Amino acid sequence: MHERANIQHQHLRYNPLRGSWVLVSAHRMKRPWKGQVEKQSEDEVPRHDPTNPLCPGNQRANGEVNPEYDSTFLFQNDFPALQPDAPDPGARDHPLFQTKAARGVCKVMCFHPWSDITLPLMELSDIKRVIDKWAELIEELGTTYPWVQIFENKGATMGCSNPHPHCQVWASSFLPNEPSLADRFQREYLKEHGEVMLVQYAKMETDRRERVVVENGDWVAVVPYWATWPFQTLLLPRRHVLRLCDLTTKEREGLASIMKRLLTKYDNLFETSFPYSMGWHGAPTGPSLQEDMGHWQLHAHYYPPLLRSATVRKFMVGYEMLALEQRDLTPEQAAQRLRNLPEEHYKTRAG
Amino acid sequence: MHERANIQHQHLRYNPLRGSWVLVSAHRMKRPWKGQVEKQSEDEVPRHDPTNPLCPGNQRANGEVNPEYDSTFLFQNDFPALQPDAPDPGARDHPLFQTKAARGVCKVMCFHPWSDITLPLMELSDIKRVIDKWAELIEELGTTYPWVQIFENKGATMGCSNPHPHCQVWASSFLPNEPSLADRFQREYLKEHGEVMLVQYAKMETDRRERVVVENGDWVAVVPYWATWPFQTLLLPRRHVLRLCDLTTKEREGLASIMKRLLTKYDNLFETSFPYSMGWHGAPTGPSLQEDMGHWQLHAHYYPPLLRSATVRKFMVGYEMLALEQRDLTPEQAAQRLRNLPEEHYKTRAG
Ligand SMILES: O=P(O)(O)O[C@H]1O[C@H](CO)[C@@H](O)[C@H](O)[C@H]1O
Ligand SMILES: O=P(O)(O)O[C@H]1O[C@H](CO)[C@@H](O)[C@H](O)[C@H]1O
Repeated sequence: MHERANIQHQHLRYNPLRGSWVLVSAHRMKRPWKGQVEKQSEDEVPRHDPTNPLCPGNQRANGEVNPEYDSTFLFQNDFPALQPDAPDPGARDHPLFQTKAARGVCKVMCFHPWSDITLPLMELSDIKRVIDKWAELIEELGTTYPWVQIFENKGATMGCSNPHPHCQVWASSFLPNEPSLADRFQREYLKEHGEVMLVQYAKMETDRRERVVVENGDWVAVVPYWATWPFQTLLLPRRHVLRLCDLTTKEREGLASIMKRLLTKYDNLFETSFPYSMGWHGAPTGPSLQEDMGHWQLHAHYYPPLLRSATVRKFMVGYEMLALEQRDLTPEQAAQRLRNLPEEHYKTRAG
Repeated sequence: MHERANIQHQHLRYNPLRGSWVLVSAHRMKRPWKGQVEKQSEDEVPRHDPTNPLCPGNQRANGEVNPEYDSTFLFQNDFPALQPDAPDPGARDHPLFQTKAARGVCKVMCFHPWSDITLPLMELSDIKRVIDKWAELIEELGTTYPWVQIFENKGATMGCSNPHPHCQVWASSFLPNEPSLADRFQREYLKEHGEVMLVQYAKMETDRRERVVVENGDWVAVVPYWATWPFQTLLLPRRHVLRLCDLTTKEREGLASIMKRLLTKYDNLFETSFPYSMGWHGAPTGPSLQEDMGHWQLHAHYYPPLLRSATVRKFMVGYEMLALEQRDLTPEQAAQRLRNLPEEHYKTRAG
């Protein structure tokens, strides 16, 4: 019953994956907005731009020429934040000045040869090829590195500097902050409750229904109970799966389909190519391949910034940076809006 | 010695205030930028805009008319994220669906009657009045609320929707995520090392000098060893002080002066009104006024987003949201650049 009261009154919700809280103040949606207006994503991206270093056949910053690829295409990031050979900064100096070595590799993966296409507009078979490549990368880089972060920054609002559809893969010699929290809280949950946190969560959400956006036989996408971004979603397999490379062919097909449906709804929400940052979290790799990682459940986070329209975003600024994240509509309201949207993309719809 | 090696090679640094790590990859500054370009902050803000609800004598959304104030001016936020009377959402339902009550008040405080002025361009006596008002608010709201968050979002890039110089004060019935971490890590540090973390840190930084930006008899501003934002700073009193209201008159005068110097350097860096989110963290209030909070040291965080110029910012997106924060120049490089800038504001400089 209290779920209904929540819709009007501010309250806190707990994020069990990271042990933090979010402030939900639904009544804030009414306030007027006179602040920054985002640039609408350009509709006019050419299919092939001879100056774009991500297109087939073009030259990149390091002088290499891309092949005439016709599916996915993977290459080393020309300006990597992580390099395989950085020296160890040496022993720690003082508890207030602690340093650790960081090594790794950064790769870029183009989804498709065309610059004017995005995942929701791609064929299912092409999305499936992206997923297969992701799985391959987790397997390959995971033999060496404890963490392989696959992520996509989509749209200029999310710091993406190239409209060509692509994602990045940063593999590191360390477990970063966010997966460390997810590891700790999932481990504690299994120990305390005897259930795999996110397997149980997916079951409960498919029963409760109010936060489900799309689902199929193998997958469910929900606006999580603890969502911070206005239309944030969590994409979960129904089966207990540790890593992308453990997905069956059928599950990969199901994933291609649910991604297309979810991302189509995102684009339809404000009839714009919806910006977001997304990424995959699966069980750590490297040395953890030898350990029991049964507390983990594979999942993807989608963090889209838009709040009210194609040009008005949510800012996570002063209060959010210094105190805690605050949202302006309830996760249930967000899920309902997404759920009610058509599954045909606005760009291909007749009429 | 290893500090020198760090300048060229990626490494991790530890943030002892929140128990997290940051990836420093200095070599990334070389990469070209073809992404989003920020709008330059407008120079042409009128001193008095009859339609701006923050100006003296104007009407606000709720129909109230502002007084003809000539110093600071405080009022209730017309669209508050926190209200004093929200009902308790009720007992928790399940470990994955946890809710807590949230109550509070949100206020807005104008710094000055003019819309075309900012803190670095204000007189020291006017900045001192802002500080006195902050101290008063911590004292007043702190009698009831465990946390009083004073913060300023400056510039459209930081979600600020009104150019009139102002900050916000959100007081809450709960201790938010960020101060909870600061409370926990400062408490553990004192217990383990017998020193107040940030008092010791300020001493060590003033000895080491390489991260100091500005200092005076009572204050020091550094780019912290663990800074995530390119030109992030931490402003610390030298004396052990728990809360803003405990500052002496001399310390408040010194604070007005160091704020003016720091913010002038910020504006001079890219010759633009430098956007940032900033806020104060002092010992929790409410029930904590009765407890020993000696592990706390008052401090202000400045989080400015600009990276390379007035229009190119750092994006904390995919990798940062899903893995850990990454920075493109070392804190030492940032401190040196800020330190070397003139202390006269570019707008008032002769020639
Ligand atoms: O209250 P304002 O200035 O309208 O709003 C701004 O600051 C708030 C507190 O950091 C944020 O929640 C909003 O997203 C931001 O736009
Ligand atoms: O690597 P890119 O796409 O040039 O850069 C983008 O993503 C990175 C990883 O999230 C961020 O560190 C950068 O700030 C952002 O602009």
